[in-house]
Amino acid sequence: MNFVDLIIKKRNRQRLEEKEIEFFVNGAAKGTIPDYQIAAMLMAICINGLDNEETACLTSEMTASGKILDLSRIRGIKVDKHSTGGVADTTTLILAPLTASLGLPVIKMCGRSLGHTGGTLDKLESIPGMKTRLTADEAIEQVNSKGIAIMGQTADLAPADKVLYELRDVTGTVESIPLIAASIMSKKLAAGADAIVLDVKCGSGAFMKTPEEALRLAETMLAAGKKAGKKTAALITDMNQPLGSFIGNSLEVIEAAEILKGRNDNDLKTVSLALGSKMLVLGGIAKDGKEGLEMLNENIENGRGLKKFEELISLQGGNPDVLYDYELLGSSLSSLSVKIRQSGFISSIDTYKIGKASVVLGCGRLSKTDTIDYTAGIIMKKRLGDPVNPGDTIAELFAADSEKCREAAEIMRSALTITTAPPKKSPLILYELE
Amino acid sequence: MNFVDLIIKKRNRQRLEEKEIEFFVNGAAKGTIPDYQIAAMLMAICINGLDNEETACLTSEMTASGKILDLSRIRGIKVDKHSTGGVADTTTLILAPLTASLGLPVIKMCGRSLGHTGGTLDKLESIPGMKTRLTADEAIEQVNSKGIAIMGQTADLAPADKVLYELRDVTGTVESIPLIAASIMSKKLAAGADAIVLDVKCGSGAFMKTPEEALRLAETMLAAGKKAGKKTAALITDMNQPLGSFIGNSLEVIEAAEILKGRNDNDLKTVSLALGSKMLVLGGIAKDGKEGLEMLNENIENGRGLKKFEELISLQGGNPDVLYDYELLGSSLSSLSVKIRQSGFISSIDTYKIGKASVVLGCGRLSKTDTIDYTAGIIMKKRLGDPVNPGDTIAELFAADSEKCREAAEIMRSALTITTAPPKKSPLILYELE
Repeated sequence: MNFVDLIIKKRNRQRLEEKEIEFFVNGAAKGTIPDYQIAAMLMAICINGLDNEETACLTSEMTASGKILDLSRIRGIKVDKHSTGGVADTTTLILAPLTASLGLPVIKMCGRSLGHTGGTLDKLESIPGMKTRLTADEAIEQVNSKGIAIMGQTADLAPADKVLYELRDVTGTVESIPLIAASIMSKKLAAGADAIVLDVKCGSGAFMKTPEEALRLAETMLAAGKKAGKKTAALITDMNQPLGSFIGNSLEVIEAAEILKGRNDNDLKTVSLALGSKMLVLGGIAKDGKEGLEMLNENIENGRGLKKFEELISLQGGNPDVLYDYELLGSSLSSLSVKIRQSGFISSIDTYKIGKASVVLGCGRLSKTDTIDYTAGIIMKKRLGDPVNPGDTIAELFAADSEKCREAAEIMRSALTITTAPPKKSPLILYELE
Repeated sequence: MNFVDLIIKKRNRQRLEEKEIEFFVNGAAKGTIPDYQIAAMLMAICINGLDNEETACLTSEMTASGKILDLSRIRGIKVDKHSTGGVADTTTLILAPLTASLGLPVIKMCGRSLGHTGGTLDKLESIPGMKTRLTADEAIEQVNSKGIAIMGQTADLAPADKVLYELRDVTGTVESIPLIAASIMSKKLAAGADAIVLDVKCGSGAFMKTPEEALRLAETMLAAGKKAGKKTAALITDMNQPLGSFIGNSLEVIEAAEILKGRNDNDLKTVSLALGSKMLVLGGIAKDGKEGLEMLNENIENGRGLKKFEELISLQGGNPDVLYDYELLGSSLSSLSVKIRQSGFISSIDTYKIGKASVVLGCGRLSKTDTIDYTAGIIMKKRLGDPVNPGDTIAELFAADSEKCREAAEIMRSALTITTAPPKKSPLILYELE
């Protein structure tokens, strides 16, 4: 097979056959196709697209390029959840213990903060002592004995994705729905779960800005999941404002704890429970979404979800007292209230900018070598549609120094649009797909 | 400037600014932009295109990436001619001496055979003793004293084209009209002529298969030539059959000599004179095309064109007697008459295959290191629309061995379509553009 012929095929908007995609992914993973040819192919795909079948095939070849975790030693149906990334998206910290407390075996691989979005791994590591480097064997054993384990991603999953992703990053080919779908799904499939629930974020703080793009990404990922023989479901959820009110690593641990304590009834809880009930249904624990929701709410009320979170922290070396005494998570030296100067209604929030402000405060990394300030962050005091008056506090900022707070406050203010009339309310959960 | 942003711009079908194209070409020529990024940009251009202004800008930046020949020491208007490549296209061998014999200063840089098409440099070198390696200074001196010089291309013209061309070849991005136009025109402009006549071939033996594509390429090249301040004209000419009847290096020298002797009145002569009269008009020697044609015909009749050819050969070390005793060019050991098996009319000729058959016989190179058999080739005995009967000879083949002749004969036969009704005649010169 001559790879140039395959590039020309895709350049001419023709379909690639299974064998041709296999040749491409193999060559990329093994380094037998030069970078410049992969780059040309990626650009042809980026512009001319891949249909769902090609994408599913690309996904399964990328999955097969490395190790596939064997979770067969874990009893029960293993359900994974993936979010395409947003701001104040703390669903994993809530759902992992909550679904585990209902008997769903939870083995969760998480990532670190990326760009303007946080990462579950960093959030967990804000808990003193918490250890996230588990081997697959350790994690499997822990799930079998205690029902839950959360760990960093092992390096050898879907190595072809690593090659392609690094090249996409420097060739202007990141924004391609089939390539994004294959990248996400290949890693999920390699992680070995039996079923996958996808949370596709949509709006100013998400990679997909419009419902149409989000739908397309969700449908593409569903098709790839089904082709691989996995039960897959997707929710498309709003990311036109931070999902929760707490942004930052230890702050998000606190908000998760508050929700597990039943003290907080907000959008973050609504989305978490919607995702959680899907997980319980796919996992065969609830017979339908309604029952799933009831079970989740019950284990919030009876405190079993919180107890499971406490157990998880203990199991992985962390101090579980942080869930009851938030002071143990530490606090920032500097804080600042961001006050509004106009009156009217909050009609839009550039959530990408809110995420960027959190990175400025120290929640994320501007470059790979940056260290994270676990206690830094933002507590949002207002939500979309709220009325505001001059002098109202819209957010509290926390950082190691006042300079960072001032810089972030400027970004925060520029992220809000205030209008005289209240904005139209948009739905929190736009679509459910299966 | 961040090159990834420029790639994304073109990926999104946006125009590139002059400064951005300059950054691209400079980076490619100097090696500061990595291959994979150039490849991604080339694919984005290949699919999304460049408008005429962007192409003109790309051309002038590629021209400026190396030396530009200074022909100011040559008196008169220097007119260059370029063909996009076809089979039995011997126009240069006819026109260089013929227009020089009318006082047009001819300094001609030629290429070697490429793919299924011949190269003027190889044709000239089939003349025993002929030397084509002249320095620019030697060539300029020869033109000033004798009016004519033909030479190989110096390596330092448009080096950015070399980088881009080599990468296009291995990334499936050759077939792009703006990239083809910029590649051709940058080399022509760097060769320093004041005016350029383009012969854009169109049909089964050309890179452009349809009149629409050929027109688009011609218009793009004209725009680039004009942007560079050069008088530029283009003919779009038919390449649905070999232009002349002789294909092969020494065979084409013979056909050129025959035409210069006034013995041959065929399509090759018609196209040559049409191009030649354009050259004379742009060169300020004829006041219009009609006068140009008359002058060219006159210098065929009075033998001055042939004399100039003889002079050129002598000047560059060759044996001019070859023009009068074709045996001096040598002859092939093996020959074969290709006979037709059907009766009817020749309704189409896959001219690409004819070119390929000539390469099989030894006229061209299958790989860079192949040597050329100067005496190998094809003499076509029939043309499009000719009636044929079983047993008629359609072509005579010449090669070093009978195996090559047999192989080429098979290709020749598969290249012809015979129908019961005569085909519609198509024009030889489709368009003239200025």
